[in-house]
Amino acid sequence: MAGFTQLFVPGPTNVPETVRQAMNMPMEDMRAPTYPTFTRGLFEDINKIFRNESGRTFIFPSSGTGAWESAITNTLNPGDRVLMARFGQFSHLWVDMAERLGLDVDVVDVEWGTGVPVEIFADRLAKDKEHRIKAVFVTQNETATGVTSDVAGVRAALDAAKHPALLYVDGVSSVGSIDFRQTEWGVDLAVSGSQKGFMLPPGLGFLSVSQKALDVAKDTTRNNRSNRCYFSFEDMIKANDTGFFPYTPAVQLLRGLRASIDLLLEEGLDNVFQRHARLAEGVRRAVAAWDLKLCAKEPKWYSDTVSAVVVPEGIDSANIVRTAFENYQTSLGGGLSKVAGKVFRIGHLGWVNEVMMCGALSAAEMTLLDCGVKVKPGSGVGAALEYYRESRQPAIAKAA
Amino acid sequence: MAGFTQLFVPGPTNVPETVRQAMNMPMEDMRAPTYPTFTRGLFEDINKIFRNESGRTFIFPSSGTGAWESAITNTLNPGDRVLMARFGQFSHLWVDMAERLGLDVDVVDVEWGTGVPVEIFADRLAKDKEHRIKAVFVTQNETATGVTSDVAGVRAALDAAKHPALLYVDGVSSVGSIDFRQTEWGVDLAVSGSQKGFMLPPGLGFLSVSQKALDVAKDTTRNNRSNRCYFSFEDMIKANDTGFFPYTPAVQLLRGLRASIDLLLEEGLDNVFQRHARLAEGVRRAVAAWDLKLCAKEPKWYSDTVSAVVVPEGIDSANIVRTAFENYQTSLGGGLSKVAGKVFRIGHLGWVNEVMMCGALSAAEMTLLDCGVKVKPGSGVGAALEYYRESRQPAIAKAA
Amino acid sequence: MAGFTQLFVPGPTNVPETVRQAMNMPMEDMRAPTYPTFTRGLFEDINKIFRNESGRTFIFPSSGTGAWESAITNTLNPGDRVLMARFGQFSHLWVDMAERLGLDVDVVDVEWGTGVPVEIFADRLAKDKEHRIKAVFVTQNETATGVTSDVAGVRAALDAAKHPALLYVDGVSSVGSIDFRQTEWGVDLAVSGSQKGFMLPPGLGFLSVSQKALDVAKDTTRNNRSNRCYFSFEDMIKANDTGFFPYTPAVQLLRGLRASIDLLLEEGLDNVFQRHARLAEGVRRAVAAWDLKLCAKEPKWYSDTVSAVVVPEGIDSANIVRTAFENYQTSLGGGLSKVAGKVFRIGHLGWVNEVMMCGALSAAEMTLLDCGVKVKPGSGVGAALEYYRESRQPAIAKAA
Amino acid sequence: MAGFTQLFVPGPTNVPETVRQAMNMPMEDMRAPTYPTFTRGLFEDINKIFRNESGRTFIFPSSGTGAWESAITNTLNPGDRVLMARFGQFSHLWVDMAERLGLDVDVVDVEWGTGVPVEIFADRLAKDKEHRIKAVFVTQNETATGVTSDVAGVRAALDAAKHPALLYVDGVSSVGSIDFRQTEWGVDLAVSGSQKGFMLPPGLGFLSVSQKALDVAKDTTRNNRSNRCYFSFEDMIKANDTGFFPYTPAVQLLRGLRASIDLLLEEGLDNVFQRHARLAEGVRRAVAAWDLKLCAKEPKWYSDTVSAVVVPEGIDSANIVRTAFENYQTSLGGGLSKVAGKVFRIGHLGWVNEVMMCGALSAAEMTLLDCGVKVKPGSGVGAALEYYRESRQPAIAKAA
Repeated sequence: MAGFTQLFVPGPTNVPETVRQAMNMPMEDMRAPTYPTFTRGLFEDINKIFRNESGRTFIFPSSGTGAWESAITNTLNPGDRVLMARFGQFSHLWVDMAERLGLDVDVVDVEWGTGVPVEIFADRLAKDKEHRIKAVFVTQNETATGVTSDVAGVRAALDAAKHPALLYVDGVSSVGSIDFRQTEWGVDLAVSGSQKGFMLPPGLGFLSVSQKALDVAKDTTRNNRSNRCYFSFEDMIKANDTGFFPYTPAVQLLRGLRASIDLLLEEGLDNVFQRHARLAEGVRRAVAAWDLKLCAKEPKWYSDTVSAVVVPEGIDSANIVRTAFENYQTSLGGGLSKVAGKVFRIGHLGWVNEVMMCGALSAAEMTLLDCGVKVKPGSGVGAALEYYRESRQPAIAKAA
Repeated sequence: MAGFTQLFVPGPTNVPETVRQAMNMPMEDMRAPTYPTFTRGLFEDINKIFRNESGRTFIFPSSGTGAWESAITNTLNPGDRVLMARFGQFSHLWVDMAERLGLDVDVVDVEWGTGVPVEIFADRLAKDKEHRIKAVFVTQNETATGVTSDVAGVRAALDAAKHPALLYVDGVSSVGSIDFRQTEWGVDLAVSGSQKGFMLPPGLGFLSVSQKALDVAKDTTRNNRSNRCYFSFEDMIKANDTGFFPYTPAVQLLRGLRASIDLLLEEGLDNVFQRHARLAEGVRRAVAAWDLKLCAKEPKWYSDTVSAVVVPEGIDSANIVRTAFENYQTSLGGGLSKVAGKVFRIGHLGWVNEVMMCGALSAAEMTLLDCGVKVKPGSGVGAALEYYRESRQPAIAKAA
Repeated sequence: MAGFTQLFVPGPTNVPETVRQAMNMPMEDMRAPTYPTFTRGLFEDINKIFRNESGRTFIFPSSGTGAWESAITNTLNPGDRVLMARFGQFSHLWVDMAERLGLDVDVVDVEWGTGVPVEIFADRLAKDKEHRIKAVFVTQNETATGVTSDVAGVRAALDAAKHPALLYVDGVSSVGSIDFRQTEWGVDLAVSGSQKGFMLPPGLGFLSVSQKALDVAKDTTRNNRSNRCYFSFEDMIKANDTGFFPYTPAVQLLRGLRASIDLLLEEGLDNVFQRHARLAEGVRRAVAAWDLKLCAKEPKWYSDTVSAVVVPEGIDSANIVRTAFENYQTSLGGGLSKVAGKVFRIGHLGWVNEVMMCGALSAAEMTLLDCGVKVKPGSGVGAALEYYRESRQPAIAKAA
Repeated sequence: MAGFTQLFVPGPTNVPETVRQAMNMPMEDMRAPTYPTFTRGLFEDINKIFRNESGRTFIFPSSGTGAWESAITNTLNPGDRVLMARFGQFSHLWVDMAERLGLDVDVVDVEWGTGVPVEIFADRLAKDKEHRIKAVFVTQNETATGVTSDVAGVRAALDAAKHPALLYVDGVSSVGSIDFRQTEWGVDLAVSGSQKGFMLPPGLGFLSVSQKALDVAKDTTRNNRSNRCYFSFEDMIKANDTGFFPYTPAVQLLRGLRASIDLLLEEGLDNVFQRHARLAEGVRRAVAAWDLKLCAKEPKWYSDTVSAVVVPEGIDSANIVRTAFENYQTSLGGGLSKVAGKVFRIGHLGWVNEVMMCGALSAAEMTLLDCGVKVKPGSGVGAALEYYRESRQPAIAKAA
């Protein structure tokens, strides 16, 4: 197959050239005397991406799943009651992990295509006068359905109930792409991974922790130390404080991380968020022009990092994903679990721009036609490009 | 600017990943004992790309312009009469070089947008009973106007006139992308460069030479040795015959060349040509859907490697190129010389596929709209993608 | 600082060029339809490196420490009795992890510079008639002291005692560099990581598991599921069986792993081991020529992957490591824990050859002199190179 | 073969990692609106490496041989008398080129192992009252014999004779490595290439030209335009003045050039020269310790970029080069032409440091022994490393 393969899954995302260059390196000694100078800058700047102003961010050689586990095992004990909502494959997996790690999970199941039910959470918290609930979990962006939840709303519910539970956020497919404000929103443990908004290959799990959660983790009366070691806060803190790691870190990815954080800070986080919002809106216009629906039920749930498109009755979305790959060298995301066969997903996060999205939409359009979905050729990509050009910042504004 | 820059100039072209990987190398000694094993395979296989069955191909550290100069200075003398046609910036530059190198150039100027006038050539050759014409030059693909000429037709004209002149072909933007048959068509000197169909960075000039031309070059009574050294055949032959080079070769590009020739041979040259034809036709359908015209006057001149699109009166094509770059990170080709301001060019050669071309057309469409050309959003890219999917080889056929 | 930095720590090790090229890649979708073809080959071939003939190898996005944890948490329960020896920083850390994960560790402390006390182990196993000991842990190569232990001897002790305990081996700095035979030696869980003999950047933890251990892990009556998720066998088995992973794998490193396994298999494991033995012996000759001692007490403990050199009284080995780095851009390993300040380490594993080791020894020699150790200039490197050339396989033998 | 290949030929030289990273790039359009910003900085900074304060430097996609040809064909006519000395393969090749390009070459042959005979040159210039000599050629560093000539001395001779001849310098293996001062020494045309002191892959030829020579080139009454086109100054000037090139430049190498010039300027040219002098002296001490002689006859001729070592009677230096490559993966330089079989060469220029040179000397030492030269193991490398550590700048001085 000739030409570049096109990657539009909602992670791993495309790696920017400067990041790729930074990772094209000979091996280095992560105990070299100069290494702490490098790591300290990294620890400082990754906090900026999470907008974590007082705590610290752990960088694990792991996937985001590992960071989930670290969040739980360092701050909660088996038997602890936690409040979670389930509305997609990734919120489901987090519930599953919490249960397997022995937590007493109060799961609120809501329709896939919606997100965290803030009112229900508010109600449960208000009623929990004894503060049995130790933690509230929010999947900020459900990658499986393209749904974004209201983290600030959950914080408001906690505050309204004067509830001391810790707030956990899965930001794997949101941090660095859509608005996230750890300190302002009072998020205690925010999880992310290298392969989404951070535009790196997979292999790093990030866990950004508030001072409050760090204090909880230190409280040996409160949590069980017998179930962690690799993901332990105390080991990581002790080593990080000297600029090193408790075991060999993924040094190549750390060099890439430096380059990717530089890109994010240089573009400016707010500009990054605006870019994602604009690219996402173009995709949504294409979906509308195709006369298809998103899995997300209402505009308030629309995700600016991934759109899950519902295929018509009689069409298997798995066939769409396979056809896009085989006929057009384009990787789209499939439907997972409950929505398997029913949706396909277009990732629009990370190192993307208008022309790349037009390519993705063109591939999707050819594929839909190949698979028997009657869409008008050019309708979707035309709607998107028309939006992109109209919504472009005028050059004069850029210069200002 | 975020996201990948899009490259759709008619050279340099996109570099395939395996080629890029092959060039990501530590430096090596081009006099190592094992080097000839590498170079001999390369010399053998590059001939296959030119379909040169009996001669040899020189690989110069130079651009294609250097290979032009080598072709002239090794086989012709100042004062020699040569027949050339001029119908675009690159055929113009070759004429200019021939004149500056002292040849007596019989230039046939034809309208830009047409190509080599085979009938006129046939006439001149037929009338040249004394064989004063030593060489006939053909620009197979005029990159400035998107016009492909009929090399086989010129050969037929030579044969019909029983004329012994050597046949020179500028194949810079054609070899490895559209049909070229050195031995079958009796081409004596075929010039190309690394940065077009060979999908490499610029830096190598190729000159594929027939046995007849090699004999002419050896004939010291016939050509002046005082005007060349760097581009000399004899030095190159002597060194190449031992597997080495007369001066330091561009070793990194040679490793890339190995990888790019492997890709071409693996896909199969005829499949490569068919891919180019199909991608080009999609672009032409887009141009038609925009209600614009190609610079190429008739279908017989249409190039499958580059399309030059004429902009409407009152529009400056230079603005289109600049706008595509600034607003959409997309490099298109501008108009050169006589057609400056009047055409913009879309390269569709090398490591390209359907989705990449849809991206290019989307960028062009947004840009046309930004520059005041009234095209219907989605019309061009829609026409192209509809063609691409209809003309796709069915998967079943591929498997067979 | 000019020139290449020299890396001679006992991991991370130098990355071969073909591995580096393989990792110079655009991002890819690890759920692509073609991905299982790639992963299945990898799963099959990594078993060959461990010489695991009937079980399977898990590849975690983690360091080797993560694979340690996976080994323990999938096959043992808090409270289970295990037999371990401690004689260096890495065997110490494994003991520490086992204790923190709640195991009842029977630690045999032996002198640093020696290794697993096979006789003591044999004695304990023979006396454990009730089979309270569930597992025996062996650090095959103690990276901190340059000591290799006798895994086959421990297996023999288990067999002699007809003891059913599982055998765990830390092969982080041995597998792929020195002889290791999982199935033949009856090793149940062998841990390794990407950044040593596998010659990759850090970021992958390997856990090669025997069928017996897989059965134990499946036995839900036997082990506690509440303390793992990320490192769970069952999740990994279920996903791997389809060619995928339970969470996003480190795709870039997996491509590198493919290339590194290819290198190991192409050289032949036995040749790889012989190369390591020969390079190590040269280093030991240099140490002898310097009139210094190894930390390893006797030849039977000598490691072929790393040599820990004891510095004379009054010399701080940390100063040696820092001086080598600052003055000669050379990374050597320092002394850890009990031997901090007392030894420096030269790694001689992975992608190394004679000339590289001579460079390392030259750097060490300059550094020793700079730090006040009286060694004769050229003595160590001279002894090594003399050995290297004498012990070289004659070219004729190679050709045969 | 395992481990890194060692490259110690006097070019191509080792490519620094940052240069390699810079060349790991997708293709780019060399006509992009932003390109001139990049090229202008490059044109300005490359002058600094030549210490050309008023003229300009041309960057050709060619080897240094091409820059030789450009120097001659733009400023001299066939028949012009030039003064040259011959004392090695590269000075020989330049003479050969001058003759083949039709110059009337007054060749002074001196013993190989010596350099430009300044006194003889002074004498010829003084006697040339009619100024028939149009140009004086100096090979600053004869790469074949490891001899550096006195450029400033030749300038003094020209000045003493008040002779207007242009001064041409072959600085291929000297510029960027040893002292060169174009403007101060009144050098008119200085040739270099990318693959030596510039630490790049081969593929760029540099020609740094004084204002005086630029004026000569413009004087159409003085030089014949019919023998050049590719290497023409006027085309290059016209295009470079707009930030572009007359034909496709080697864009990947230009990005590498930016990185390599940055490295040179960051280290500081004088520091670079001092580093080369020091590394070279270590190699010479090794040669002395081996009881071997350099090809260079006297210290005043010693080159700081390459040492040609004379092998004892009865030893074939070609065998040494082959043995080093086959047995130790080390590329050394062989003897060329008159000194074929008699010398082998160690390159010590570009991206090199002490440890790398100790590796090279170790490889040479093993090879000499393998080939029957009786040297004491460790003697050469020991002498070198002793010198390196003694001559090291104290860290405190560096900090100052």
